[in-house]
Amino acid sequence: MNLDALYSQLQVKTPAKLVLLVLDGLGDIATKEQNYLTPLEAASTPHLDKLTADAVQGRLIPVAPGITPGSGPGHLALFGYDPIEFQVGRGVIEALGLGLELKAGDVAARANFCTLNEKGIVLDRRAGRIKTEVCEELCALLSKKIKKIGDTEVIIRPGKEHRFVVIFRGKGLEGPLTDADPNREGLAIPAVKPTDPKSAKQKKAAKLIADFYKAALPVLKGRQPANGFLMRGIAHQPEIPTFEKRYGLRAAALAVYPMYKGLSQLVGMIKIEGPETIAEQFERYLVEHDNFDFFFIHYKYTDKHGEDGNFEGKKKAIEDLDAALPILLEKRPTVLAITGDHSTPCAMKSHSWHPQPVLLTSECSGSDKLDRFTETGANLGSLGIMEAKYLLRLMQANAKMFDKYGA
Amino acid sequence: MNLDALYSQLQVKTPAKLVLLVLDGLGDIATKEQNYLTPLEAASTPHLDKLTADAVQGRLIPVAPGITPGSGPGHLALFGYDPIEFQVGRGVIEALGLGLELKAGDVAARANFCTLNEKGIVLDRRAGRIKTEVCEELCALLSKKIKKIGDTEVIIRPGKEHRFVVIFRGKGLEGPLTDADPNREGLAIPAVKPTDPKSAKQKKAAKLIADFYKAALPVLKGRQPANGFLMRGIAHQPEIPTFEKRYGLRAAALAVYPMYKGLSQLVGMIKIEGPETIAEQFERYLVEHDNFDFFFIHYKYTDKHGEDGNFEGKKKAIEDLDAALPILLEKRPTVLAITGDHSTPCAMKSHSWHPQPVLLTSECSGSDKLDRFTETGANLGSLGIMEAKYLLRLMQANAKMFDKYGA
Repeated sequence: MNLDALYSQLQVKTPAKLVLLVLDGLGDIATKEQNYLTPLEAASTPHLDKLTADAVQGRLIPVAPGITPGSGPGHLALFGYDPIEFQVGRGVIEALGLGLELKAGDVAARANFCTLNEKGIVLDRRAGRIKTEVCEELCALLSKKIKKIGDTEVIIRPGKEHRFVVIFRGKGLEGPLTDADPNREGLAIPAVKPTDPKSAKQKKAAKLIADFYKAALPVLKGRQPANGFLMRGIAHQPEIPTFEKRYGLRAAALAVYPMYKGLSQLVGMIKIEGPETIAEQFERYLVEHDNFDFFFIHYKYTDKHGEDGNFEGKKKAIEDLDAALPILLEKRPTVLAITGDHSTPCAMKSHSWHPQPVLLTSECSGSDKLDRFTETGANLGSLGIMEAKYLLRLMQANAKMFDKYGA
Repeated sequence: MNLDALYSQLQVKTPAKLVLLVLDGLGDIATKEQNYLTPLEAASTPHLDKLTADAVQGRLIPVAPGITPGSGPGHLALFGYDPIEFQVGRGVIEALGLGLELKAGDVAARANFCTLNEKGIVLDRRAGRIKTEVCEELCALLSKKIKKIGDTEVIIRPGKEHRFVVIFRGKGLEGPLTDADPNREGLAIPAVKPTDPKSAKQKKAAKLIADFYKAALPVLKGRQPANGFLMRGIAHQPEIPTFEKRYGLRAAALAVYPMYKGLSQLVGMIKIEGPETIAEQFERYLVEHDNFDFFFIHYKYTDKHGEDGNFEGKKKAIEDLDAALPILLEKRPTVLAITGDHSTPCAMKSHSWHPQPVLLTSECSGSDKLDRFTETGANLGSLGIMEAKYLLRLMQANAKMFDKYGA
């Protein structure tokens, strides 16, 4: 029997409130330059420290040993979905990041303007990194000229600089397709192809992309340097069982950035708009407390500073969150898990594979008797080092949402 | 290649003696009420402490993260069988708990007397919890009237209060079947059905249950309040490869409670009757030392007190076992593993999913240099947090029962 099926079989309803607080890119590594302290270790976190008395700790492997996740797989795993089984295309992630709402079956592509010569050879894959305003203008032009191809709706939205996103909303479409991108200059744009030659839906989608090129290139003709475009990560929004269906939980997302709102919507969470700061997010949790069973609260700034290699900034971001934590605890959830979706070590200025620390507290979590919540503490905790996809299962267990297995 | 097949392939015979000492429900959680000490931590355990110098520790996940096992899956995992692959029906477990010996292919059901109205509607699912003596009397009556149905032998044994067990011993039978239980009052008893509509054996078993009802209900007619009965967990005893076949080990079980004798028999262990206390069990191990390769020694009282929420009782039960331990060590086994089949935290008064601590000692176990065997120590041990089903493989490895894999 499949393990997910077993979990479903054992699942029962309880009136518990579960909160998953994600400090994006929280995990870090200890280096000599920072006296072998991570930002979480260097930060002053009196409220997190206080939680540890009645909490257990451990580390989460986002996908598999050594694999660095993007935000998509990182969050899907935290939501309890195997990030290898449930794959979300880059086009879909990009669209979500721009705040676009996707429907199951939509095919999305990351695109960017490029410069072509008269023979269609790619001269500059980024069209000289045109300004965002130019990109917006060109996308508006394309949107005006191309609203539909056959019976398929075409949605074009600008991103930063040369980047944009195209969504095809129609029937019988499927990804993933190969890229319309030669990956280097001096070559023509290749025609996209199905990755599964037997899929009629992929064939239909590939034909659609070809037709889109036929319609769009003439519109851009002469518009130097952005007279062409490349498309990558062409994939459909997969059917992912919703939180409600999978766990029987009415789930809400309190996120500020579009990407995380989008990822939570992929699993059917209700996005709660409005809050701009972590204090406001916690305040809103208090207001919405009775309306949902599960709250996903996303905090971006730990990752942002990690990406910038800004140790002090990441430390401060953790301290800011800690300072706001008492608001959340005014209505202490039955189960509270605090973690990252991955590590973003300042010393690396990028996401990494290092398992992120996690803290879990409930009336029956037990205690690891640790003084603080840190990477080093997490190494000593009773959760051990486990795959991130099991965190949600442990939250359910702590909420007494599983019957006993066998007699 | 399947991992079990690899283990089998590498397996060799050695004259080692392996002892698996199971303190049922040993694991616990640290809570404020008990000054953040678990019973194992609070107990005085000089002999266990002494063992730790040359032992390694870790924690065992009985089934999967967050899943709370019953005694069946808990023990099957300790015996090295994947508790999801090898499932044992509740009827089978119940029969084993009553001390009934099952044969492979027997179909067993948990049953209980109920009250029906003249139209066959269930008025009381537990027949007013009739006294055990009444249950015994009714089971004797049914046994006398119904010895066989067709060529299938029918065995009926009373349990406590309204509960009993029915075993069907014949050819070509198989479970699991759906329950003959409406699960609430005000409805009729549903006919049982195969869970796999394609299984001819399940169909035969379902027909047999229907015939059993036809024969048994008239016998109970007018016997208020127990004039009917419900049947649940109808399953056959699965074919489980024996210890001897799977590991090449002649295994003995030293258990006091029928359930654990039964579980050990499921995997072909020889049950050694007689001992009533842990000291007597250890004494008997000394006597039987040369007759077996593997000894499963089961100690119930840790779980019993955990279920009662009796912290002092659980602590005392651990101390009692520790006091008797020197008897076992008079003939120190080549490999000794001490663990639980799951946790039974006093604060929860029930089994739980928290990984139970394990201690493993042999001449080549190495040492984790810990002072005591505790949950907190186990968090720091070199075994890490692993699935319980691998413990037996580690015991085999410590007994040098595996050839090197590859050159």
